[in-house]
Amino acid sequence: MNVLALSGGVGGAKLALGLAQTLPDENLTIVANTGDDFTHLGLRICPDIDTVVYTLSDLADKERGWGRQNESWNFMAAFGRLGGEDWFNLGDGDLAMHIHRSLEMAGGKSLTEITDDIASALGIGPAILPMSDDPIATIVETPDGLLPFQHYFVRDRCVPAVTGFRFDGIETAKPNPKLMNLLGRGTLDAIIITPSNPFVSIDPILSVPGIRDALQMLSSPIVAVSPIVGGQAIKGPAAKIMTELGLPSSAMEVAKHYRGLIDGFVIDETDAAQADDISTLGMKVKVAQTVMRDLDDRKRLATECCDFAATFPS
Amino acid sequence: MNVLALSGGVGGAKLALGLAQTLPDENLTIVANTGDDFTHLGLRICPDIDTVVYTLSDLADKERGWGRQNESWNFMAAFGRLGGEDWFNLGDGDLAMHIHRSLEMAGGKSLTEITDDIASALGIGPAILPMSDDPIATIVETPDGLLPFQHYFVRDRCVPAVTGFRFDGIETAKPNPKLMNLLGRGTLDAIIITPSNPFVSIDPILSVPGIRDALQMLSSPIVAVSPIVGGQAIKGPAAKIMTELGLPSSAMEVAKHYRGLIDGFVIDETDAAQADDISTLGMKVKVAQTVMRDLDDRKRLATECCDFAATFPS
Repeated sequence: MNVLALSGGVGGAKLALGLAQTLPDENLTIVANTGDDFTHLGLRICPDIDTVVYTLSDLADKERGWGRQNESWNFMAAFGRLGGEDWFNLGDGDLAMHIHRSLEMAGGKSLTEITDDIASALGIGPAILPMSDDPIATIVETPDGLLPFQHYFVRDRCVPAVTGFRFDGIETAKPNPKLMNLLGRGTLDAIIITPSNPFVSIDPILSVPGIRDALQMLSSPIVAVSPIVGGQAIKGPAAKIMTELGLPSSAMEVAKHYRGLIDGFVIDETDAAQADDISTLGMKVKVAQTVMRDLDDRKRLATECCDFAATFPS
Repeated sequence: MNVLALSGGVGGAKLALGLAQTLPDENLTIVANTGDDFTHLGLRICPDIDTVVYTLSDLADKERGWGRQNESWNFMAAFGRLGGEDWFNLGDGDLAMHIHRSLEMAGGKSLTEITDDIASALGIGPAILPMSDDPIATIVETPDGLLPFQHYFVRDRCVPAVTGFRFDGIETAKPNPKLMNLLGRGTLDAIIITPSNPFVSIDPILSVPGIRDALQMLSSPIVAVSPIVGGQAIKGPAAKIMTELGLPSSAMEVAKHYRGLIDGFVIDETDAAQADDISTLGMKVKVAQTVMRDLDDRKRLATECCDFAATFPS
């Protein structure tokens, strides 16, 4: 079974790991959101790519939810003492990723090539593709003005109310050519939208010119996993954002968000009562245990998503 | 007593610390060699400035002789795993210095301003001045071609034979304006050339257009401390370099190197027998214990240098 997964950070990476552990390497491609990327301290930082890379190479810190395990923090302590900006914490080992990438970019390599090199160096089998090699910046619209995503997400801890999002640079951005090749070959058996934030992780991917259209032209089934369980996000501000946008924070509302694109929707057992209503949106619904506490959960959900996709006629 | 010290890395920084501990802050200025500086991994690295800064802020690792104490090395380990160049080891805390400096330079600040800010942040009292704000690169001439200094010094561990040195960029470099102001005020009571390497630490400073002439125009005494003790360098390749250049590695030879510039020369007790010969070069000689094993040694040598300078008519 050939699978393409669309992923943001933590939640998406968990399911991507489950897929990586249940599919042959060559049968899995993960497209990562790059709308969170930013240049900080002179370094190019790609949080979602890095989370997927660390998760798939077993370097991720599982408790903290970001960055590397067994990390040290001497750089940031010393940098703060020099008066440097220290709101975006960077671990010492993690810095290697950003310095490496910044150097390679300055040398003319594309983010796709760099990500591929990093994945190879860390022994990752499945392909990890940035959604685009062109810089795209998710900007958060708030009543007090615009905030670059990491300022909203990390510096301001998602406190500002959200009125909308824009993705700067997306109109002229080209989709990842490897992704477009893959979509064009027509060999995919399933596209899985992982339970990452629909607004700031998945929407940027779908908004890169050409990607959404190419996905919709495929005969392959597209299934999404709800990031909202029991009205709450497992991690991150998805539920808070939905409320601020005037939307109920429910699996049903996420299904509406993806309506017209997806063929199937995976909701948690907690939300089983919404299954019939969601079916009326023109999609099949699968109820599963979507909260991924350990590796077995990740693998089981990955298998259930693949099995669910296999039930669609192609 | 107002003192200007010329310093390279470790040996110079030791005496600079001794001076800093025996003179009021406002009475000491340290000029640091910047010929060792280079841009590496996209970062501007200034090894001699940093050694002086770490030594004077008590952050230096005293055993290793470079970098910070209680340092961790997770960045370089992770960077090496990504295939990054890892011959120039950079500690995690030390990286803060290079990233901070690189950012500030990109923002338009001069190396003088940045060094001053860093020294203030770390509570250093005496002024530390780079010899120039313009980039100057010490290049090592070898039978096999030219080597940038850090490639010779760190990557190749001083193994290549040296046939000469050049200081790229020095013809058009401007001396540090604060240094030239200080020299022009005529308020210095002594210039002390620390026991750093004459060829690669002190010569670059003296070769910046204007500095040597300004020093020679002063009525203030200039005293140098021999980095060669018993025919050997306390640290570093000075003795090896002298041999390769066809010079005896002796205190006498260092005195000859500085002849015409210095008024007094401090040699180690080990070399007391050379005192009379060195006197014939037209300089006063002081015999002292110049090997600085602990802080008391540094302070005693600093005091002896100042006392020695005070014996010259001004």
